[in-house]
Amino acid sequence: MKKDLLHLGELKKEELIYFIERALELKERFKKGIIDRPFISKTMALIFDKASTRTRVSFEVAFAQLGGHPMFLSSGATQMSRSEPVKDTARVLERYCDILVIRTYAQELVEDFAKYSKIPVINALTDLYHPCQILSDLMTVAEHKGGINNLSNLKYAWVGDGNNVANSWINAAKVLGFELSLAIPENYDPDKEVLEKALETNKNIKIFRDPKEAVKDADIIYTDVWASMGQEAEQKEREKVFKNFFVDSALLSHAAKDCCVMHCLPAHRGEEISDEVMEGSQSIIFDEAENKLHMHKALLDIFITNNIK
Amino acid sequence: MKKDLLHLGELKKEELIYFIERALELKERFKKGIIDRPFISKTMALIFDKASTRTRVSFEVAFAQLGGHPMFLSSGATQMSRSEPVKDTARVLERYCDILVIRTYAQELVEDFAKYSKIPVINALTDLYHPCQILSDLMTVAEHKGGINNLSNLKYAWVGDGNNVANSWINAAKVLGFELSLAIPENYDPDKEVLEKALETNKNIKIFRDPKEAVKDADIIYTDVWASMGQEAEQKEREKVFKNFFVDSALLSHAAKDCCVMHCLPAHRGEEISDEVMEGSQSIIFDEAENKLHMHKALLDIFITNNIK
Amino acid sequence: MKKDLLHLGELKKEELIYFIERALELKERFKKGIIDRPFISKTMALIFDKASTRTRVSFEVAFAQLGGHPMFLSSGATQMSRSEPVKDTARVLERYCDILVIRTYAQELVEDFAKYSKIPVINALTDLYHPCQILSDLMTVAEHKGGINNLSNLKYAWVGDGNNVANSWINAAKVLGFELSLAIPENYDPDKEVLEKALETNKNIKIFRDPKEAVKDADIIYTDVWASMGQEAEQKEREKVFKNFFVDSALLSHAAKDCCVMHCLPAHRGEEISDEVMEGSQSIIFDEAENKLHMHKALLDIFITNNIK
Repeated sequence: MKKDLLHLGELKKEELIYFIERALELKERFKKGIIDRPFISKTMALIFDKASTRTRVSFEVAFAQLGGHPMFLSSGATQMSRSEPVKDTARVLERYCDILVIRTYAQELVEDFAKYSKIPVINALTDLYHPCQILSDLMTVAEHKGGINNLSNLKYAWVGDGNNVANSWINAAKVLGFELSLAIPENYDPDKEVLEKALETNKNIKIFRDPKEAVKDADIIYTDVWASMGQEAEQKEREKVFKNFFVDSALLSHAAKDCCVMHCLPAHRGEEISDEVMEGSQSIIFDEAENKLHMHKALLDIFITNNIK
Repeated sequence: MKKDLLHLGELKKEELIYFIERALELKERFKKGIIDRPFISKTMALIFDKASTRTRVSFEVAFAQLGGHPMFLSSGATQMSRSEPVKDTARVLERYCDILVIRTYAQELVEDFAKYSKIPVINALTDLYHPCQILSDLMTVAEHKGGINNLSNLKYAWVGDGNNVANSWINAAKVLGFELSLAIPENYDPDKEVLEKALETNKNIKIFRDPKEAVKDADIIYTDVWASMGQEAEQKEREKVFKNFFVDSALLSHAAKDCCVMHCLPAHRGEEISDEVMEGSQSIIFDEAENKLHMHKALLDIFITNNIK
Repeated sequence: MKKDLLHLGELKKEELIYFIERALELKERFKKGIIDRPFISKTMALIFDKASTRTRVSFEVAFAQLGGHPMFLSSGATQMSRSEPVKDTARVLERYCDILVIRTYAQELVEDFAKYSKIPVINALTDLYHPCQILSDLMTVAEHKGGINNLSNLKYAWVGDGNNVANSWINAAKVLGFELSLAIPENYDPDKEVLEKALETNKNIKIFRDPKEAVKDADIIYTDVWASMGQEAEQKEREKVFKNFFVDSALLSHAAKDCCVMHCLPAHRGEEISDEVMEGSQSIIFDEAENKLHMHKALLDIFITNNIK
C-alpha cells in the first residue's frame, strides 16, 4: 500500500474495501464501549488552510480516542505563512509527528508534503479531491444498502457542481466499478482528466444536464452546496445556473423507491436540498456525518501502522 | 437533573449545592495529588465566539486533568462561520463529542445547541448569563465564609453594570434565597425578566443607585468591568456613568468588617476597583479564579456522568 | 537552579551541560521506543504572540509525548488581547497550569510572567533572546562534533543579522567559553549589553564585517534569515545590506574542512544560504530541527520536576 492517501484514484479495490471493513469494525468496537489506545505518545498534525467543522473535529476526536495527541495548525499560525518551502516544513514535521492530515487549496501542496516527508500524509480536502469524505460515505452506503459486497451493484446519482467531492465520487466509481450518473450544469463539469481516466475502465459514468434523468432508479442521491469554500463571490451567479439542480421530493420521486439521500454538509436548505428531504426518512445525512469519525480512525490506524512496519 | 446547564435560574437548590460540594471534593482530591481520569477517550468541544483566558483554560485543564481531550474551536475556524444552522452543527457534534461548552453572544444560540443535540451543553457565558462563574464564586464564598450551609445567610453586594454576571447572581439569589443588593446606575439595570422572576420568591433582592447603601454590612462585595466584551465602543461614556461605582477602601469601610471582595476578572484597576483593594487582604479574587478549575471539573463530571446513565 | 529559563546568560556551565546531557538521554530512550509519561494530568500553556512551526510543534509534541496536555494560546484568543496586566494573567495561569512557554516581542513580558507566577516560565523566543534554540543547537553540535566535552573547544561562526539568535549564541559563548566569530554588517550589531557582559569573561567573541574572516577555520557556521518576524518591511533594504553575508560553497571553503552548517529555519534559499549548502553533506539543519523536540522534553522535565521539589 502507498505511504499516503492523496486521492481515491490510486487505490486498489481491495484497499478501498479494507478501509471500509476496518472502519465498520472500529465503529462496532466503539459502540460496545471498547477503548483502543494504540496511539499513546503519538501525534498528528492537522494542517488546515480552510475552515472545517466535521473533518477537523472528526479527525481530532478519532486520534484522541485512539490515545494520541492531535494538533490543529491553522496555516496562519505557522511559518508556512512566511512562505517557507513545503520541502522544508515537511522534513521538519516528519521529525516531530506521526502523521499529517492536510486541508488546503492546491492538490500539489498535499502531494509535495507527501513527497518530502517520510511520514504518511492524508488529504483532508483540496480543490481537486476529497477522498476521506467519499470513504465514509461509502461506509454509510454499506450500512444502509446491503453491506460492502453490494456497493458495486448500486446506482449512485450526483446532483450539483462538478467539484472536488464529485471528482472523488468519479474516482470511487473507477475503483469499485459502480454506475454513477452526474447531473451537472454545463460549464461546471468535473475535472476532465479525472473523468477520462475513470472512463477507461468504467463506461457507466455519465454526465447529464437534467437531474431527473440522472436520478432515474438511483439507489443513492448525493448533493453538495452550489458554491464551495472560496467560491462565495460566485454565489449569486451559481444560484441562477444551479436553480434546477435541487434535491426535493419531486426529484426524489424519480429515483428508486428506497433511495437514500446524502450530503456532505454544510447544507443550504432551499438551495441544493429541501428541508423536507433533508429531515425526511430517506436522509442518511447525519449517519454519514458520524461515519467520518469511524472512517478517520480506520485511516489513521491503517496508515500509521502501515508506516511503522 | 436537566441535560444541560443553561442558566442558574432553572436549578433546584439541592442541585446547586451538590455542584459546590462536588467541586470542593474534587479540589481536595487534587490538592492531595490524587489523579482521577474518568474521561479517557472522551472529548469536549469548547465553542468560543469571544476571547477568553480563564474560562477557556480552566475548562480545558479541567477536562485534560480528568483524562479527556479538550478541543478549542474558535468560531472563525469552523463551518459555523459559513452560517450553517445550529440544528445541523449540533446534530453533527453530538456524534463526535461527549459534551459541548459554549461561549457566545446570544443565549438563544446556547439553548438551540442544547435543544438539538443529545449531549450535554454548558453555557460558558452569553450576553445574558454566566452561570459557571457564579458557581465557582459561591464555592469560593463557602471556603471563606463558613461553608456551604452558611451561603444563604450572607449578604452579597454587586457594584457595577447590570450585566450577564449580575443576572446570574440574581438567579443564584433566587435559588439560594440570600440577600443581594445591587448598586447599578440608572439605565444599566439587569435583565427585567430575570429580576422579576427572582423577586417572586426572594424579596431580598434590591437595586440601589448609591453603592454605599448597597454594600452596607455586606459580607461579599462583587464587581466587574464597566464595559464587557463587545461594549468597548461605550467605554468613554460608561466611564462617566460608572464613576462612583468604584470599589475602593472608602466603599469597603461601609461593608461588614470581614467582608470579602470578588471580581471575575479581567480587572481594570483604577476604574471599577482600586489596586489597593484588589491586592489587599480582603480580596479573594485569585482563589476565586482558581476555583473555576475545580468547579468546571465538577460540572463536567456531573453532566457527562448524568448523561451516560 | 532558577525557577525559569529566561536567557542563557544566567545559566551556570554545569546547568547548560546538564540540559544537553538530559536531552541526549531522552532522545536515546525515544529512539529505543521507550515511552515515558511523567506528565499525566499536567498541562502546559504555550502563549504565542508570533507565528511558529518548529518551536510550537516541538514543544507541543514534547509535552504530549511525556503524557501531558499542551494548550496553544494565541494571544488574540485570550483576555491578554483586552490588555489585562501580566501580573494578573500570570497569577491566574499559575493556578491552572504546570508550566508556561512564551513566545513574544518584549523580553520584559516573559520576565514579568516569571516574576508574577510561581510556576516555571520558559522563553520560547523574544526580540532579545532565543535560548531554547541555542540549547538544541549545541546538542546537535555535540552529536556531530565529538560530544559534549568538545563543545568548548570548537570555533563557531555566526553569519548574518545581530538578532535574538545571535544574542543567545553570545550568551552561550559566555557560559561555555568557546570561540565565537560573528560576521555582521555595520549597524546590525547584537545587543551591546549582552556582548559587553560576555566579553568580561570570554575575550574570544569577535565581530567582523567580512564573513570570510569570521568563518576562517570555523567548525560551525550558523546563519539565519536577514529579516526576522516583524521586520518584513525592512526586507528590501536588508537585502542590500546583507548581500555579502551569504553562506554558499565559496564561503564554506574558508572554514574548517569538516565544518558543519546550521540554520534555525525557516530559510530563504538564495538569500542568506544557497540551496547547494542547505542540501549539502555538511548541513546538519534537519537534525538541528529535530533536536528541538528532544531538548524541549529535557527542559520541560527539568523545570517542572525542579519546581515540584
